[in-house]
Amino acid sequence: MFTDNNSTQKFSGMSIHSNTSALAYCQMHRPRFLEELKTLIRFASISGQPEHVNDLKGCAAWLADHLCRIGMEQVTVVSTGGHPVVYAESCHAPQRPTVLIYGHYDVQPADPLDEWRSPPFEPIVRGNYLYGRGASDDKGQLFAHVVALEAFLRTSGKLPVNVKCLFEGEEEIGSPSLPAFLTRYKDKITADIAVLSDMPIPAPNRPAITESMRGALSLELEVRGARRDLHSGLYGGAIHNPLQVLSEIIASLHDKAGRVRISGFYDRVRDLSQEDRAYMKAHGQSDAEILRHAGAAAGYGEPGYTLYESSTIRPALSINGIAGGYQGNGPKAVIPDRAVAKLDFRLVPDQNPEHIERLFRRHVDRYTPATVRAFVRKQFSAKPAMTDRDHPAIRAACTAYQFGFGIKPAFQRSGGTLPVVAMLRDSLGMDTIMMGFALPDDAIHAPNEKFHLPNFYKGISASIHFMAEMGKQPVIAGYPLRFFEAAGTF
Amino acid sequence: MFTDNNSTQKFSGMSIHSNTSALAYCQMHRPRFLEELKTLIRFASISGQPEHVNDLKGCAAWLADHLCRIGMEQVTVVSTGGHPVVYAESCHAPQRPTVLIYGHYDVQPADPLDEWRSPPFEPIVRGNYLYGRGASDDKGQLFAHVVALEAFLRTSGKLPVNVKCLFEGEEEIGSPSLPAFLTRYKDKITADIAVLSDMPIPAPNRPAITESMRGALSLELEVRGARRDLHSGLYGGAIHNPLQVLSEIIASLHDKAGRVRISGFYDRVRDLSQEDRAYMKAHGQSDAEILRHAGAAAGYGEPGYTLYESSTIRPALSINGIAGGYQGNGPKAVIPDRAVAKLDFRLVPDQNPEHIERLFRRHVDRYTPATVRAFVRKQFSAKPAMTDRDHPAIRAACTAYQFGFGIKPAFQRSGGTLPVVAMLRDSLGMDTIMMGFALPDDAIHAPNEKFHLPNFYKGISASIHFMAEMGKQPVIAGYPLRFFEAAGTF
Repeated sequence: MFTDNNSTQKFSGMSIHSNTSALAYCQMHRPRFLEELKTLIRFASISGQPEHVNDLKGCAAWLADHLCRIGMEQVTVVSTGGHPVVYAESCHAPQRPTVLIYGHYDVQPADPLDEWRSPPFEPIVRGNYLYGRGASDDKGQLFAHVVALEAFLRTSGKLPVNVKCLFEGEEEIGSPSLPAFLTRYKDKITADIAVLSDMPIPAPNRPAITESMRGALSLELEVRGARRDLHSGLYGGAIHNPLQVLSEIIASLHDKAGRVRISGFYDRVRDLSQEDRAYMKAHGQSDAEILRHAGAAAGYGEPGYTLYESSTIRPALSINGIAGGYQGNGPKAVIPDRAVAKLDFRLVPDQNPEHIERLFRRHVDRYTPATVRAFVRKQFSAKPAMTDRDHPAIRAACTAYQFGFGIKPAFQRSGGTLPVVAMLRDSLGMDTIMMGFALPDDAIHAPNEKFHLPNFYKGISASIHFMAEMGKQPVIAGYPLRFFEAAGTF
Repeated sequence: MFTDNNSTQKFSGMSIHSNTSALAYCQMHRPRFLEELKTLIRFASISGQPEHVNDLKGCAAWLADHLCRIGMEQVTVVSTGGHPVVYAESCHAPQRPTVLIYGHYDVQPADPLDEWRSPPFEPIVRGNYLYGRGASDDKGQLFAHVVALEAFLRTSGKLPVNVKCLFEGEEEIGSPSLPAFLTRYKDKITADIAVLSDMPIPAPNRPAITESMRGALSLELEVRGARRDLHSGLYGGAIHNPLQVLSEIIASLHDKAGRVRISGFYDRVRDLSQEDRAYMKAHGQSDAEILRHAGAAAGYGEPGYTLYESSTIRPALSINGIAGGYQGNGPKAVIPDRAVAKLDFRLVPDQNPEHIERLFRRHVDRYTPATVRAFVRKQFSAKPAMTDRDHPAIRAACTAYQFGFGIKPAFQRSGGTLPVVAMLRDSLGMDTIMMGFALPDDAIHAPNEKFHLPNFYKGISASIHFMAEMGKQPVIAGYPLRFFEAAGTF
């Protein structure tokens, strides 16, 4: 366990000195850091699209090369079954904790391309923002930590803590290779604490530590009818239409109030205390703020919950895409032979992805008529995760935000999913500090993704302060403190 | 009215003679006709896709050139607001009826391209079939008439009737330019009867005259949510999903038994007599045949009707396509900002497309929640059409089939829609003989469309006999006999 008392004060003089130099260094080299981040964004490292495999390789190679140049050691591009992991370390702080900095250099697909104001992989600054796919999720946030490392290494010649970097290339597809990677390189990778920055804070002047994330379950649902496309004039009314059946199955998944109608879906959902909900109300985004960020006129969801609650502490089911039949210009008189939907569940403690998948399959079986066949394919899953506000590393993160952003952070809950958090917990027994530098309107996963540049610079500063704060804590027996509750124990 | 008594027998000797020469000519030149048809199919004349505008122009030019070469007169490629009409005539049979041969040289889109065994616009013979987009619908059937014209012109030097050809390039998009064209060139185009071959017969040895077609109403339904795509992790459960709403609206359109649930939808549907239904049962396709042709394991539709009835004398609603959200490989955590469905209604007497559109819009209004906006866009519409079995031109068609196919034809009903039939009726007061040469498993509008070559040759022969039979009928006062009932009189 990290100590958290006055005995650590003897180290603070050195830390403050090295902070000052590191911060000044960052101030001086901002234009270069921005150019380097743009270079990183130019790689079209879309992990979900096989045609981009070489862009991921190129991105990993550039990142590894950059880590070498700034003075990190043991830099390696590690092959996996999928896209490579970039590893680096600098461990010269005996008796100090080891921090694993996690990030991901892969990005979401960029389509619909025609809705981008500038090409997604040609990053450009407009106003206070850097635009480009991955600018915020997660290249910009990842790179803030890399810059902080450089600042220490180039000014003090060493880091105030031991640092290991693990930058993966498969986060956007559910990190399929990561569990095997973590198991194989467990001894190399294990650290006292992990930190990751891959989430928004409510506003530039409202930093926040993320204390819970939802789990996820992504599925494909396919309905197949006749063996070939049929003419809807000749067969309309006589042969069941897979698109119609798919729509009917999807319609059966929610009730009118917006609750998921799958039998048993809410059985294991843990209710938050009134105290926790009151904290959320006091510190979280209001309905109006969420609607403004979403660009939506009206909210939706389970009765009795705020939009912030509906999107964080309550589970949800989204239809991510439907494809079937004719999609070109004009009409086409066709009954398609098949139709496919992509769906994702977001899960909360104590829901378990495997259990929800079984419930979904049973629901689909029940709602599929005998005239067609339905197929469910799992894409990926991740368990929900929660933190403990009293952990000393969380307190270090609070201090870091306070110095970096000039404001005391709040605790927030996220509706998103970071599979790595549950994986680090399950595989290595490690806890993760979730310290975001993004903003809610960054348009991640959407056209015109952007990163707020003042947050980039404040994030660098927060990362410097986080390492400095952690460096004040000598490691003593009893570590690691388990502050995550593994969600669900089925 | 055409006479239909023994007084016409004096012309039959000449007809039989010219028939014999024409038939022999066709027998001799089959390989060339096949090559010419392949040339016609090579034009990617997809009327619904703007990028193919020049393919339509090229196709029209080739067809016009060919009509000139075989001896047709006044051959013209007529500009319209959309794709051109090819017109030709040969009117040297005074006192004989004038027949308008209608066909369309445009084709459906060819996608999904990867399901074609050979490229859609590189026609190829495999076994008894010619494969290619448009082989059956409608280039092959149209071209059977063109060959018949050539056979008469090259053997007798003239046709037994007056003939006008009208080959349009917009049938697959609902013939939007045709009404204005028909009005403008009414005097030029009007004939005593129209004939068209753009439908299947039940089997090669079961020729049939089509006595009714369904009307059509093609619509697009779009649902819009937030102003941009949203991350389904961050917003799932809090913002309504247009794909979910679209699915729910579509699901509301049918009840569990397969009936359309739009209020008032069946109010104007005319019930057939028990006698008509008994005829359909005796002469029409069985459920098993329809399922075999469709490649479907099970039927669907309104209780109390055979599949043949469900797809011809009962109205239907098909979902032709849905597009929304992510459709690429792998998952993408997105709530799309919009989703679009293409739908088509098939209508029967006395349903009226305008009325059904109003009912649909009212239904959509009722089922659209306040959290999103829905938009309905009309693509095209056409009224249903019916014929009278006692018309003398129908009897000429019976004789033509009997000679051409060697078998007495039955009367059949089609679930398809030919907007031109109602247009010719409404604009020019003309009736249309629907004399198909296609087969139910030709895969029209689908990958691997094909045309049964024996039907091509029998169709040529039937066309020759039809013209010869019509040539036996002198035109007398009282023409035209109205044998179509205009469907609905709202």
